[in-house]
Amino acid sequence: MGLSAIYEPVQQDLAKVEDRLRLESKVDFRYLSELLDHSLKSNGKRIRPALTLLSGKFYDYNLDSLLPMAMAVEMLHTATLVHDDAIDNSTVRRGKATINELWGEEKAVLLGDYLFAEAGALTATTQNLRVIKLFAKTLKTISSGELSQTFDAFNLKQTYQQYLQRISCKTASLFSMATESGAVLSQAPEESIQILIEYGHNLGIAFQIVDDILDFVGTEEELGKPIGSDLAQGTLTLPSILLLEYYPEENPVKSLFSSRGERDNIKLAIELVRNSSIIEECYQVASDYCAKACHNLKLLPENASRQSLVGLADYIISRKR
Amino acid sequence: MGLSAIYEPVQQDLAKVEDRLRLESKVDFRYLSELLDHSLKSNGKRIRPALTLLSGKFYDYNLDSLLPMAMAVEMLHTATLVHDDAIDNSTVRRGKATINELWGEEKAVLLGDYLFAEAGALTATTQNLRVIKLFAKTLKTISSGELSQTFDAFNLKQTYQQYLQRISCKTASLFSMATESGAVLSQAPEESIQILIEYGHNLGIAFQIVDDILDFVGTEEELGKPIGSDLAQGTLTLPSILLLEYYPEENPVKSLFSSRGERDNIKLAIELVRNSSIIEECYQVASDYCAKACHNLKLLPENASRQSLVGLADYIISRKR
Repeated sequence: MGLSAIYEPVQQDLAKVEDRLRLESKVDFRYLSELLDHSLKSNGKRIRPALTLLSGKFYDYNLDSLLPMAMAVEMLHTATLVHDDAIDNSTVRRGKATINELWGEEKAVLLGDYLFAEAGALTATTQNLRVIKLFAKTLKTISSGELSQTFDAFNLKQTYQQYLQRISCKTASLFSMATESGAVLSQAPEESIQILIEYGHNLGIAFQIVDDILDFVGTEEELGKPIGSDLAQGTLTLPSILLLEYYPEENPVKSLFSSRGERDNIKLAIELVRNSSIIEECYQVASDYCAKACHNLKLLPENASRQSLVGLADYIISRKR
Repeated sequence: MGLSAIYEPVQQDLAKVEDRLRLESKVDFRYLSELLDHSLKSNGKRIRPALTLLSGKFYDYNLDSLLPMAMAVEMLHTATLVHDDAIDNSTVRRGKATINELWGEEKAVLLGDYLFAEAGALTATTQNLRVIKLFAKTLKTISSGELSQTFDAFNLKQTYQQYLQRISCKTASLFSMATESGAVLSQAPEESIQILIEYGHNLGIAFQIVDDILDFVGTEEELGKPIGSDLAQGTLTLPSILLLEYYPEENPVKSLFSSRGERDNIKLAIELVRNSSIIEECYQVASDYCAKACHNLKLLPENASRQSLVGLADYIISRKR
């Protein structure tokens, strides 16, 4: 099932989200307008707003609140990317130059702040206090997850559990915010909301694990950014954690972290991971999370969106970018 | 009237705000806890939370919502300072090393994000949609004001009107958010809310003008940071705009901006401003805004807080830090 088939039940409304995101850059202040245009007109997959809309399809599908919420979810995501790129000095994202690369770091920091605020403003238009509180909580969770990642940079003593905790904060929290807000705003009963939260959380974990795999096995053309970037930043992910377990003595990751970025060691680590069973194992973990994500979906009303949520879990595993 | 006399009607509650701000740094994640502790345990004047509490004193003074709101206002302020310092590479603020100086820029960006989120979460606990929307709008306004400042750096062609517009966004918007939220949360009638918005806005303009004056006439000990920092960043403020008007031909600010930061020119500009009538004129503009701020306060119920608001306007003009 390709993304367009998966998005089919909400395709028209997702197009509206896209249109309105473009309108967001129509502000009086010309420079801000250019920054917004560059950051919001991306070639991202729009998975998060799709999750909000699909999760809203089981009960009262009310676009008046679901549309701004879907926009808010994507904008919050964009804001975190803009700040991440600024912090990491990343020059390319999704095949395009980053805001910090084109306009400098200070603009990236302030644009991110503006996007957080606009995402908050859109969330507030739903008038729903539960999703408003969820929005603030999620931003706290994401930024503390990112903080813990920077504090753990080049630290070899990280466990699988710490990794899960970190990606739960920095990625899964936004996925589950996307599904929870869709469910809440469509007046879903609490049991259904919980099923969709669980789905979003587990899907988010799987998504991040695959992201971390692709940083080892993808190509720069597919990913739209250099591979090996996690190791270059000193970030341990599931493949490198397993590599450290398998080769506790001599290991290019160890050498890399003690030398703080010898590029040759990154190449070596990537090769070693590719020529081992590690990738397969990581995919297995991701698949297990996807299965967990879908496990209770059958308790929701049967409709095309439910099939899409299952399809999305498959897509996430098989994706190449 | 000193600050402690001005704060008298809300002194106890302001102490509670202080206590609770300290409790905010008690989080499980040790590094985050240290960052929060450093940024929230400042020797700031706490003018903004005092404004919220004082503005809440005319009708239903309900601490359940006013306390978290006062905290949110101060936290939002702190978040913007943390990001500003990171962007400007400032090393000292209020006599203390900045977050970016101690922990690096990436931590400062993420801590600022966390503080924005926590401020939003506190605002959401008031359950009041008007102040929740106001919060998001204010953060948008502040970040676009800061953006316009960075885009105008080292640009000599800036008018007094543009300056007013900029400080209205970056400073006055938060002052008027502080007063508006206090009024709204205490169930003030709309006319009273408008009077307090107007007060906050004009007071904020005056406050920023005095801040910009002190960057020319203050001392490093009083300010807790180097003087001349606006010019060093390429930011024109009221004193330098007037200087450019008075000496349109030969002018150290012109030389400074074309050389992008020759420190000798900063000294020259400061001397020239100090030895002219410019400072007096700037104080006159600030005083006019303070008079405007206080003009309609007499329409509010008479009480000690009303006197404090008048006293605060006087204090803002006479302050040395």
